[in-house]
Amino acid sequence: MPNAAYDRLTDRFARIATIGECASMLGWDAAAMMPSGGAKARGDQLAVLAGLSHAQLTDAATGDDLIAAETTRGGADPWQTANLALMRQAYTRATALPGDLVEAQARANAACEKVWRDARQASDFKQVAPFLTEVLRLTREAATALAPALGLAPYDALMDGNQRGVRSADVAPIFAAYEAFLATALPQAEALQARRPAPMRPQGPFPIARQEDLCRRLSERLGLDFDHARLDRSAHPFSGGTQTDVRITTRYIEQDFTQAVLAVVHETGHALYERGLPPAYARQPVGEPAGMGVHESQSLIVEMQAYRSDAFLSWLGPELAATFGGAPEPYAPDNLGRLWRRVERSFIRVDADEMTYPAHVILRFRLEQALIAGDLVVADLPGAWNDGLQALLGIVPPDDARGCLQDIHWYDGAFGYFPSYTLGAMAAAQLMNAARRAVPTLDDGLARGDLSPLLGWLRTNVHAQGSRLGFNDLLRAATGKPLDPADFQAHLTARYLV
Amino acid sequence: MPNAAYDRLTDRFARIATIGECASMLGWDAAAMMPSGGAKARGDQLAVLAGLSHAQLTDAATGDDLIAAETTRGGADPWQTANLALMRQAYTRATALPGDLVEAQARANAACEKVWRDARQASDFKQVAPFLTEVLRLTREAATALAPALGLAPYDALMDGNQRGVRSADVAPIFAAYEAFLATALPQAEALQARRPAPMRPQGPFPIARQEDLCRRLSERLGLDFDHARLDRSAHPFSGGTQTDVRITTRYIEQDFTQAVLAVVHETGHALYERGLPPAYARQPVGEPAGMGVHESQSLIVEMQAYRSDAFLSWLGPELAATFGGAPEPYAPDNLGRLWRRVERSFIRVDADEMTYPAHVILRFRLEQALIAGDLVVADLPGAWNDGLQALLGIVPPDDARGCLQDIHWYDGAFGYFPSYTLGAMAAAQLMNAARRAVPTLDDGLARGDLSPLLGWLRTNVHAQGSRLGFNDLLRAATGKPLDPADFQAHLTARYLV
Repeated sequence: MPNAAYDRLTDRFARIATIGECASMLGWDAAAMMPSGGAKARGDQLAVLAGLSHAQLTDAATGDDLIAAETTRGGADPWQTANLALMRQAYTRATALPGDLVEAQARANAACEKVWRDARQASDFKQVAPFLTEVLRLTREAATALAPALGLAPYDALMDGNQRGVRSADVAPIFAAYEAFLATALPQAEALQARRPAPMRPQGPFPIARQEDLCRRLSERLGLDFDHARLDRSAHPFSGGTQTDVRITTRYIEQDFTQAVLAVVHETGHALYERGLPPAYARQPVGEPAGMGVHESQSLIVEMQAYRSDAFLSWLGPELAATFGGAPEPYAPDNLGRLWRRVERSFIRVDADEMTYPAHVILRFRLEQALIAGDLVVADLPGAWNDGLQALLGIVPPDDARGCLQDIHWYDGAFGYFPSYTLGAMAAAQLMNAARRAVPTLDDGLARGDLSPLLGWLRTNVHAQGSRLGFNDLLRAATGKPLDPADFQAHLTARYLV
Repeated sequence: MPNAAYDRLTDRFARIATIGECASMLGWDAAAMMPSGGAKARGDQLAVLAGLSHAQLTDAATGDDLIAAETTRGGADPWQTANLALMRQAYTRATALPGDLVEAQARANAACEKVWRDARQASDFKQVAPFLTEVLRLTREAATALAPALGLAPYDALMDGNQRGVRSADVAPIFAAYEAFLATALPQAEALQARRPAPMRPQGPFPIARQEDLCRRLSERLGLDFDHARLDRSAHPFSGGTQTDVRITTRYIEQDFTQAVLAVVHETGHALYERGLPPAYARQPVGEPAGMGVHESQSLIVEMQAYRSDAFLSWLGPELAATFGGAPEPYAPDNLGRLWRRVERSFIRVDADEMTYPAHVILRFRLEQALIAGDLVVADLPGAWNDGLQALLGIVPPDDARGCLQDIHWYDGAFGYFPSYTLGAMAAAQLMNAARRAVPTLDDGLARGDLSPLLGWLRTNVHAQGSRLGFNDLLRAATGKPLDPADFQAHLTARYLV
């Protein structure tokens, strides 16, 4: 290596990645632009692209070239070695699943997700239970097929598809330790918070056009280059598009600019990661993001670590006051800190603060392990959910809409994804610590609304690494140690307990 | 038929059409949404889709299934027969060209088009001449390869790719007759026009948001359903997207709403055609538009025949006055008629009125025939252009930017396309006559701003026919005769000579 087989593989994977770019753009369009009447055709378009991509990947020639390239790997540089290993992994995953299982999953997931929307609306778990049962049955079948091919336990095979190299055995003790930390930290944080003045909420209306302009300015200020990006609206904020053409979205409500702004900051973090991936390995597996946990670390380091820091809020407060006018007091940095760094036991994961958020993830991690293992049946999920939340946060959802029906993930066939959120939050704290040690000007930058000292460090130590390294190896190279939950706990302690 | 081979072909062509939909959407995005930094990746995405589509079409299995389906065609209905013939034609066209020629053309066209943009800006034909020479060389090679496969002369093989079933021998006498008509009609129209009051131009500014709102309302009023359509902005107006998700664009200038409105009306005509194609044959060759000439007839019947009619202007004038306010006189229907139905000898095709427009097309038709035949070399094009325009309209372009450099077509490898514009204009007049005869309420509808009586007739007689019939057969079925330029001349006579 380099050799002819490897070169053919890089061509093939570039083609596969390019098909993926088409799908990504069409996915963005579906969420941000498409009229409702285009939905059916769009589904067909994405299915055809998925089929073409799958055919390219599982072609017999891919397998032959992988063997040929693997047997002649003398002198390969570590990027090529990693690239080849990732190609092998993608091929193994794709060929481990029978085609009719993949199709059955696509159909079952789509059917279940559709029913879930109504069931959540009506808070009626029974309505969707048979569909979720079928989704789970097929997911377990897939996990069982993937497991021996990857040399992993079934649930780990699913997790590995979202964050390579992280096993449930790695995560379980970290989550257990967090549960213990939370049991004392949360009441302390609540008590401390109760003794401080309640935050003032800025009073709207906040004209949408002004919010939109602010969001774009903020995103640019954080480092997103709009020659290679767009900001649009969609029902649920997301970051999509491609490495050289990132599309982020948010939603606006006139009475509260916070939602739109925080979403844009979060998605900007994702987008900056995409923009910083190594161009030399564009469209190669090794040039892709290192997994969903790492991706979430990059959104959260911007949203939670940088944006909500005292330093950044000291710059942001006057900016917000100038943008929206009205009484200046709510925009005082101290008040913004109390407003945006507030702990609260609540039912909905996506609205949770950073201290209680992991509890929502821990609940789901344990439940989905039990579902995949066959230790929990779908009919018992609502009860298990409510018991679990009671144990973790001491609250019980008043209905299933605010309980086990709240997230789309399982109903769309996504198992093994949830841990990525908390792995990302913990990694973000650890990366921030390392960046602060390495870049003394980091907080001075934030106090000027300038993310570039932090971003420069992330570019080098995270973004430019692509997926050359797994989750823990990436952290080890960047911070000197694998994931260490102590950094996240220290961050929370400093922010909420003193 | 129906038989297994035919069924496999319909699956294959549906897949090809779906890939085409992806490309169409990405093309729209590139023109209407994409940040500049996304251009390079977009080029790769479209090239990969083109390659995948070409591979599907030229697969040996396509040829085998065509033979099998063609030999067992007993009992086929005319739609299936036409569909199979169109599949055969697409296969013949795609397999007649060697892959390396197709690639060389793509590269040469892209390179030439890029240089053309600068050359037109600088009005420097010499700059682009070597690139156009290469484009022409490859186009001639392609035409020579296509000709025997299709049983056509080389130039006709190119024309056939744009408007199936129309030959240069059909067009040449029609164009010659038009040239003769124009020689007397144009001076007469000019003289008549000179005796009438000069039109008043509505005075701006016309706020862009109000123009945009007007354009959308007009497009809806004309029958476009925005559950299946979008209206956006782009540098050059166009109609794209897919049959169930049409994307039209326009551009706005604050001092003149006319450009935006007329472009939207034109593109709405194209979009209505797409929306009216037969759903039962969606994604099949026979369910596609019947060619570029027919497509242009549908934009022009809306823009030229309906919108600029006295009846429609009598409804539109008050609408415009209410939209923009200011002095009402310019919005009087009579004045709008004088403003928007004005003949003028001019250099630029896209700005030409409907009477002189065919002269621009005739010039290009003759020149491109000579270029493909080898009777005209690229170096002599500017002189031949200027001589030709002098002969047709009695004017000589002051520079090549307003002469042979004005249109992108040839510089992007599009030869045999120009006749479609005038075939469309003539067909539009002929279809309008037939529709008026068949639908007595047509002009009453227009006077209420209601296109639906006309649209209903077009839906049945043009849109729903897909591409089952060739250009002249479609006209014969709809109007009782093949293309008859007398209808267009009668239209011009009634509008400009009385």
